Amino acid sequence: MIKIGVIGYGYWGPNLVRNFAETPGMSVAGVADLDPQKLEIVQKRYPGVQTTKRFQDLLENKDINAIAIATPVSTHFELGMAALKAGKHLWLEKPMAETSEQASKLVDEAAKRNLVLIVDHTFTYTGAVRRMGDMVKVGELGDILYYDSTRINLGLFQRDVNVISDLAVHDFSILDYLVGEQPVALSAVGINHFPHTPENLAFITLFYNSGMIAHINTSWLAPVKVRQILIGGSKKMIIYDDVEPSEKVKVYDKGISFTEDAKEIYEMRVGYRTGDMWAPKLDFTEALRVEGEHFVDCIENNKAPLTDGLLGLRVVKLIEAAARSMNERGRSVELNGIHMHKGREVA
Amino acid sequence: MIKIGVIGYGYWGPNLVRNFAETPGMSVAGVADLDPQKLEIVQKRYPGVQTTKRFQDLLENKDINAIAIATPVSTHFELGMAALKAGKHLWLEKPMAETSEQASKLVDEAAKRNLVLIVDHTFTYTGAVRRMGDMVKVGELGDILYYDSTRINLGLFQRDVNVISDLAVHDFSILDYLVGEQPVALSAVGINHFPHTPENLAFITLFYNSGMIAHINTSWLAPVKVRQILIGGSKKMIIYDDVEPSEKVKVYDKGISFTEDAKEIYEMRVGYRTGDMWAPKLDFTEALRVEGEHFVDCIENNKAPLTDGLLGLRVVKLIEAAARSMNERGRSVELNGIHMHKGREVA
Amino acid sequence: MIKIGVIGYGYWGPNLVRNFAETPGMSVAGVADLDPQKLEIVQKRYPGVQTTKRFQDLLENKDINAIAIATPVSTHFELGMAALKAGKHLWLEKPMAETSEQASKLVDEAAKRNLVLIVDHTFTYTGAVRRMGDMVKVGELGDILYYDSTRINLGLFQRDVNVISDLAVHDFSILDYLVGEQPVALSAVGINHFPHTPENLAFITLFYNSGMIAHINTSWLAPVKVRQILIGGSKKMIIYDDVEPSEKVKVYDKGISFTEDAKEIYEMRVGYRTGDMWAPKLDFTEALRVEGEHFVDCIENNKAPLTDGLLGLRVVKLIEAAARSMNERGRSVELNGIHMHKGREVA
Amino acid sequence: MIKIGVIGYGYWGPNLVRNFAETPGMSVAGVADLDPQKLEIVQKRYPGVQTTKRFQDLLENKDINAIAIATPVSTHFELGMAALKAGKHLWLEKPMAETSEQASKLVDEAAKRNLVLIVDHTFTYTGAVRRMGDMVKVGELGDILYYDSTRINLGLFQRDVNVISDLAVHDFSILDYLVGEQPVALSAVGINHFPHTPENLAFITLFYNSGMIAHINTSWLAPVKVRQILIGGSKKMIIYDDVEPSEKVKVYDKGISFTEDAKEIYEMRVGYRTGDMWAPKLDFTEALRVEGEHFVDCIENNKAPLTDGLLGLRVVKLIEAAARSMNERGRSVELNGIHMHKGREVA
Repeated sequence: MIKIGVIGYGYWGPNLVRNFAETPGMSVAGVADLDPQKLEIVQKRYPGVQTTKRFQDLLENKDINAIAIATPVSTHFELGMAALKAGKHLWLEKPMAETSEQASKLVDEAAKRNLVLIVDHTFTYTGAVRRMGDMVKVGELGDILYYDSTRINLGLFQRDVNVISDLAVHDFSILDYLVGEQPVALSAVGINHFPHTPENLAFITLFYNSGMIAHINTSWLAPVKVRQILIGGSKKMIIYDDVEPSEKVKVYDKGISFTEDAKEIYEMRVGYRTGDMWAPKLDFTEALRVEGEHFVDCIENNKAPLTDGLLGLRVVKLIEAAARSMNERGRSVELNGIHMHKGREVA
Repeated sequence: MIKIGVIGYGYWGPNLVRNFAETPGMSVAGVADLDPQKLEIVQKRYPGVQTTKRFQDLLENKDINAIAIATPVSTHFELGMAALKAGKHLWLEKPMAETSEQASKLVDEAAKRNLVLIVDHTFTYTGAVRRMGDMVKVGELGDILYYDSTRINLGLFQRDVNVISDLAVHDFSILDYLVGEQPVALSAVGINHFPHTPENLAFITLFYNSGMIAHINTSWLAPVKVRQILIGGSKKMIIYDDVEPSEKVKVYDKGISFTEDAKEIYEMRVGYRTGDMWAPKLDFTEALRVEGEHFVDCIENNKAPLTDGLLGLRVVKLIEAAARSMNERGRSVELNGIHMHKGREVA
Repeated sequence: MIKIGVIGYGYWGPNLVRNFAETPGMSVAGVADLDPQKLEIVQKRYPGVQTTKRFQDLLENKDINAIAIATPVSTHFELGMAALKAGKHLWLEKPMAETSEQASKLVDEAAKRNLVLIVDHTFTYTGAVRRMGDMVKVGELGDILYYDSTRINLGLFQRDVNVISDLAVHDFSILDYLVGEQPVALSAVGINHFPHTPENLAFITLFYNSGMIAHINTSWLAPVKVRQILIGGSKKMIIYDDVEPSEKVKVYDKGISFTEDAKEIYEMRVGYRTGDMWAPKLDFTEALRVEGEHFVDCIENNKAPLTDGLLGLRVVKLIEAAARSMNERGRSVELNGIHMHKGREVA
Repeated sequence: MIKIGVIGYGYWGPNLVRNFAETPGMSVAGVADLDPQKLEIVQKRYPGVQTTKRFQDLLENKDINAIAIATPVSTHFELGMAALKAGKHLWLEKPMAETSEQASKLVDEAAKRNLVLIVDHTFTYTGAVRRMGDMVKVGELGDILYYDSTRINLGLFQRDVNVISDLAVHDFSILDYLVGEQPVALSAVGINHFPHTPENLAFITLFYNSGMIAHINTSWLAPVKVRQILIGGSKKMIIYDDVEPSEKVKVYDKGISFTEDAKEIYEMRVGYRTGDMWAPKLDFTEALRVEGEHFVDCIENNKAPLTDGLLGLRVVKLIEAAARSMNERGRSVELNGIHMHKGREVA
């Protein structure tokens, strides 16, 4: 039985506690938060759970063998390192740290102590992303030519991190899961519309050696929430709309290819889509529930999580590269010393 | 009465002829196309109209006082210049020329001869764009902070021009109409997935001195046609979805601003939109019909068209700048010698 | 070559003329309308076409071998009979006549003279209805258990016919095409909200011996246009939304059946749909064009049209039965002397 | 402080317990269910709550002063009466009883003992229905001419009640809340596609003396969940789509009226909507939470609930009338001895 202590009961913490409480093989032993009102809510909802303003109480609790950290990013490193040093398995919110150096140290510490370190890149555990991953794996889409994500939110500004750390990280982890290669360069443009605040709007382009290109449009300035990803393959294309209640993933039975047929060209000109469309039934189990069970499985069977510290580290490196590129108004930044392919022509 | 001759009866020409034929004060006198099958179609549809394989026949026809050119871009300059030299008013498809040098010469020639030169940036004449223009003009949106367009098509490749010349030009002209300032720099990234073809996918960012930013995501590789523009103002925001049959323009009664209110923050976290939404009834008159009447008015009353040669020229300059930026993988290119503001912070 | 004369150039007539003008094997020889302004429009659009205020001119024209009638219903019988007696093949708008007696006489007259009589139930010729017909024919849906149509319009009142004659007739003809049996009883409820006007809102239920049930919700009082049909089969179900631009027909891979499985029951409780969904690519050729070519083929090869006079007659009988039922506030009316099945239980 | 005991922890019970646990002034004291597995779930989620297989334990518990009943309808009367006789305030799921006679007895018993009896017609407490109620009250819609609901579910059959008791009851309660008059007659048609099961599909029409008409299309046989209500007023019209995440209520600034204007008629023919549309921001507080607070307020201040026993009784009477009408295949049934207006013409 995993007994978990949760540090931070702000926006995301309640979702963690609710799911952990229902996950077989797991129980919530304690919750720490600096705000006593939050702790009162915990006590009303979960009368048996220890609550404390001191996170150290959870680390010192011998019954607790895992810690989840859902606090602001700036505290991830310190709290995460303390939890590992106390011998606890670690569930860390994304992004896992402020710098890749910190992220590396957390990865090393967990490895040294043989503790499980999972980074909560939740989207990897959704039915939609797993279904698309299956399709990519068996080659159903053919070669992936582009990934195009719009992930924009309702004018909710954050003061501690920029919109890339808040939203684009989801795409970084989805790309890492879906695509079998790492990007070799990145170009980002961002803007802050208010003084002394982090970027609230950013456009990021990732380049891959295969010629694939990924683009992420992300912002806190939208009038509506949009969560839409297009994936273009040489055999099939996908639209994944996470806001759509019933048909999140639509697969279009038409790849990217040339045509010289005049009638087909005309139809494409005036039409709205090509080929049959197919919307597979998805597993709608809440992603956090799937992820919680996976965490239990990793601890009990000494496995590496799907979203382990190394993934978390790769994501932090992309955030850093985006910051560098934004500082030079979109100049492309090479990643990992891997040399870019020359020219734009790729086929 | 304007008697117009139309050169080119491919994809767009039939729309011109159909609308010109119904426009008061205008009649279609002749159609020229190299393909005799196209001319047969014209004869079946419009028995009284002169048809010819030689465009010169239209220029030499004294009854004809205006020429519309709906041929490939590479022929615009030669045909347009010939029409102006024959003393005809000129309707030119977009983009107006292959280079800004050619575009300038056309503008000068028209001015010298006191002939009307309209460039067919059709979107300017839609009920939706005109309605949004009215709203911007009276300050209903407040300061415009961003413009974000997704304009993607169904895998229809063109061999002569790239996707920016084909699709992004619509956004260039809409921006020119809606926004009271010109961009000062541009960054573009593009890719061609097939050898020896123009870019089929591109992301363009335009920077403005006021701090406004515009982004255009454009591609021929999509599984569905998308025509969606978000405009974020300090007072209100707009979504303009041109594919939507009945509610093309949605205005959200919520501007971009900070909030410290915890309840409002939570609602924005979990909600799908903020504020009331309002979808004004639009004028659904076909844009080409409005534009045709405007052309007649400009000729009869010696006015400059809303989409005159100077607009056409500014659009061609943006196409050229995008090409330069794409060649350097997104390095930002300054426009018009106007110096960029320093840093990214704008407020 | 079919030379057709069109009587009536109001709302629908222009669509007929435009399509007939483009249909191979057919040309428009003349147009008759009482309104000289309409005739002027015809002359501007189609300079070579005879125009006249006297429909008799078309009947007397020896070159003309077919007549299309797009006038108010109250004139269909007189004009249609005159055309047949003049030896012309006949294209008649729906509903074909005011009474089933009149409709029968038209059917008999056409048969006697061996002339083709097509009733313009246009929906039968759409890509969507033909595609669904193919699916039904090969048993892809299994047994059809229900048909449920919502066909509501934007507050446009008509003074001469009720909303059933205007809108529900489309469903009557689609049902006739899709379903292999005739209804045995009908119940209808309707209301007029303004004095001395025909019903502007009606709900019609059709009963079939197999246990299938059809329901049609039709009105002129809606704020938006809705054209949605659900078809429930024992193997698969369909949603056909004619307003949707790109995915008109959606096929759900889930039939109607019992389940005792608790997890499945829960998913149906909270879910939005079951099974995979599939949206086949449809033929988007304009239905009137398909129908025009079919009319030519029937005349040239002496075939009975898909929507012949007998179909038109069956539709008129349903309109009459609906009127009887509405007069008795929904009391069910038996059709054709066929006895109803007893009780409501059908399996 | 209201201490509530909940009987029944099947589909709906967990939602009650979750909301009651968070409602100020209320706490969940006990849960009874016949299934020990359900009780185990309760214990894991809410460690401090009494669980029992005997509902009598809750009635005998002196600390408990209110009982909520979320069991099958057939048990509502017996359990509800026992709770009232034990002196507990009563929260009863809908429909409140199997017969109007039972419902009346419950109403009388609660009145005699001065206990609060709320029937859980949840929709009355949603932000959407309350917002529409406000609009109706101030006359914003003008006279209501029709109410047209489609409420169809995903093939989930129930064996104990028919689809009217399951789904149409929501419309009965919404109508009761929104409309200031009671229906005077009802016509219903229903069908069961499987032997020995209740009706799985039904169409109900309600007639009102003012000329208003209401129609409810309800079924368990749909491929997708639909929750759509159209309300047509003489000044404005509403579409309320409860499945839509962000724009549940759309108000169209166009009432129902005649027009003779040819241009307006044509636009209505070819258009998709008329007038401006406006989607007010709604309160998204969970309806059960609002209802829970209302229950507390009614008990503490001795008020009658918005959805009291008399509303519950009126709903049960409509269910009974629908059953009678279905048995006679749609013959209209008069309600409450109120005489119907003569004829169908109402204005």
